[in-house]
Amino acid sequence: MTGKKPMKVAFQGELGAFSQQAIQQLLGTRAQPVPHQRFDQAFAALKAGKVDSAVIPLENTLAGSVHENYDLLLKYPFTITAETSVRVIHNLIAPPGVTFRSLQTVYSHPVALNQCLDFFAKYPRIQRVPFYDTAGSVKMVMEDRPAGAAAIASELAAKTYNASILKRGIEDDRQNFTRFCLLETEGAKPHAVPGASKRPWKTSLVFSTKNVPGALFRSLSALALRDVNLIKIESRPLRGKPWEYLFYLDLIGRQDDPAVHNALHHLAELADFLRILGSYRSA
Amino acid sequence: MTGKKPMKVAFQGELGAFSQQAIQQLLGTRAQPVPHQRFDQAFAALKAGKVDSAVIPLENTLAGSVHENYDLLLKYPFTITAETSVRVIHNLIAPPGVTFRSLQTVYSHPVALNQCLDFFAKYPRIQRVPFYDTAGSVKMVMEDRPAGAAAIASELAAKTYNASILKRGIEDDRQNFTRFCLLETEGAKPHAVPGASKRPWKTSLVFSTKNVPGALFRSLSALALRDVNLIKIESRPLRGKPWEYLFYLDLIGRQDDPAVHNALHHLAELADFLRILGSYRSA
Repeated sequence: MTGKKPMKVAFQGELGAFSQQAIQQLLGTRAQPVPHQRFDQAFAALKAGKVDSAVIPLENTLAGSVHENYDLLLKYPFTITAETSVRVIHNLIAPPGVTFRSLQTVYSHPVALNQCLDFFAKYPRIQRVPFYDTAGSVKMVMEDRPAGAAAIASELAAKTYNASILKRGIEDDRQNFTRFCLLETEGAKPHAVPGASKRPWKTSLVFSTKNVPGALFRSLSALALRDVNLIKIESRPLRGKPWEYLFYLDLIGRQDDPAVHNALHHLAELADFLRILGSYRSA
Repeated sequence: MTGKKPMKVAFQGELGAFSQQAIQQLLGTRAQPVPHQRFDQAFAALKAGKVDSAVIPLENTLAGSVHENYDLLLKYPFTITAETSVRVIHNLIAPPGVTFRSLQTVYSHPVALNQCLDFFAKYPRIQRVPFYDTAGSVKMVMEDRPAGAAAIASELAAKTYNASILKRGIEDDRQNFTRFCLLETEGAKPHAVPGASKRPWKTSLVFSTKNVPGALFRSLSALALRDVNLIKIESRPLRGKPWEYLFYLDLIGRQDDPAVHNALHHLAELADFLRILGSYRSA
């Protein structure tokens, strides 16, 4: 129990969103989540010092990398200081007292509705209605109480708006995870996440190569020659520069480990551009 | 003018969707688009012989690769026979006679609404209402005629439902392209797309590597040693197999070019698993 002010954390979405669950996993329940409508607004809030950090999704097992956020990472000088993985579990949520048998309508974000198609196929009497946001649909059914209506969202959204969970885990695919990272201002130290102290270190970076055959192969030699292991690589075409690419790369190790340090030094020599996004414990 | 039956093409979405525009670019206006609610249903329709081909999105410049469809490509034995790129242009669309000044509400898919935030910031009197589908929102405003209502969708959706375009290109980011591929049954020959005959050949493949340091580097040597150029590489963790990965890779060249043929033979030797998805003219 200290008198410290709670850390303010920018995120995109409504209170009760999966991002807020990521904030709790990373920073505990004392952190104060600050909702923003757009990702760029969450980044801008951190830049302006209105928040202490930001938590943003970088990739989802079904939907892939969130390029918009990689672009914003390059635009701002922030450091990734931790990461966490949130299993996306969709629950059927209604105001207390509403029974499953009385349900006629279910509101949620279309992506969430589309991830629960087996449920809707099983209960054809229930109509799907698209809504702006998963957590926002819970807020709406609690405030407006439309007759026979429920929402699909996270357990945290049910708690946030004091709603009841009628059915848990109605998503079609259990392998639905989103990886979130914690961003702090430039030069911040890795953030200690509860339970992560025995997990391997990871370093994230972005680089581009000159437009010559084998350029990527040569760049990867900087890592392979030192037995540094990759855990993610992804190319992205550079806008307006045909045949030139950015590469997003995650490797095992910490940037001040001697082998990683030397590999990054060598990579900087081979690449056109290199930016180290941060070293942190893997989730 | 031949008596040939039009090619039936499965796609995901409503008539007027961006996928239908991709079908027109790939196969002309005589092809018959067959809408499906889900991607897996479009694949299953091709497998069952209910359609002659399928057109599916593989990646978007803002949202990244569509992993769901790469997974389905591995599940089914289809061949990619052509590709095309569709610029995602969002238009404000209303029933004929509705004026811009009378607008109070705009319906569309939340992703489309979120890609037009500058427009909504400029006209705060206009309320955004989420809808299931971009093209479906045009169909709805034409059928139900809610007072002062418009939709956001493609030009093709306006044409499909005989609606008027009130404003063109209201998206925030012009660099919004989706890459679609044409899928045909196993062993189908590359499909000649009008205007593509001078574009370079491209070959798409998926492979996995053994779990040893430098495995990717060694695999890429098969290409680099023969000056075969990569244009896309992306790793994806293998479900239930920590530290093992699938790689999606696109290279320049045709699988029966001697250098590419030898490179693929060498890669098959180095990789745990290799599947060639097809050779086709790049878009």
